[in-house]
Amino acid sequence: MNRKMEIIYVSNIAELRKQKKLTQRQLADLIGVDPSTIRNWERNRGGIETFMRLTKLCEALDCQPQDLFKSD
Amino acid sequence: MNRKMEIIYVSNIAELRKQKKLTQRQLADLIGVDPSTIRNWERNRGGIETFMRLTKLCEALDCQPQDLFKSD
Repeated sequence: MNRKMEIIYVSNIAELRKQKKLTQRQLADLIGVDPSTIRNWERNRGGIETFMRLTKLCEALDCQPQDLFKSD
Repeated sequence: MNRKMEIIYVSNIAELRKQKKLTQRQLADLIGVDPSTIRNWERNRGGIETFMRLTKLCEALDCQPQDLFKSD
């Protein structure tokens, strides 16, 4: 029986935030979201799938996230 | 009356895709999403707001999108 090992990805945001010595509220204010959004992202709720899509999109287009937008 | 000018950002994905000479289907296959998702992103619908938040998140944490998650 060939069980395909599936890699499970988890959020790395809490570690990155602590390295920057930011609280969840401070990070939330920097981005303009509610602190509960930060908590959700850090607890793998409603974010990882989108992070991976954004990563693959930037890789496919050979660009940085900021390049995905332009001012109207 | 001091009307604060708010910059409106719009998707730049269609231009980036055409520069790479990719069709919507080809880009969709590269990322593992449905072509309709690419169409939505190019027309500023369905998730482009989240990409903007993630772009700000990467800037605030000084990281790349792929740093936002790790294998468990």
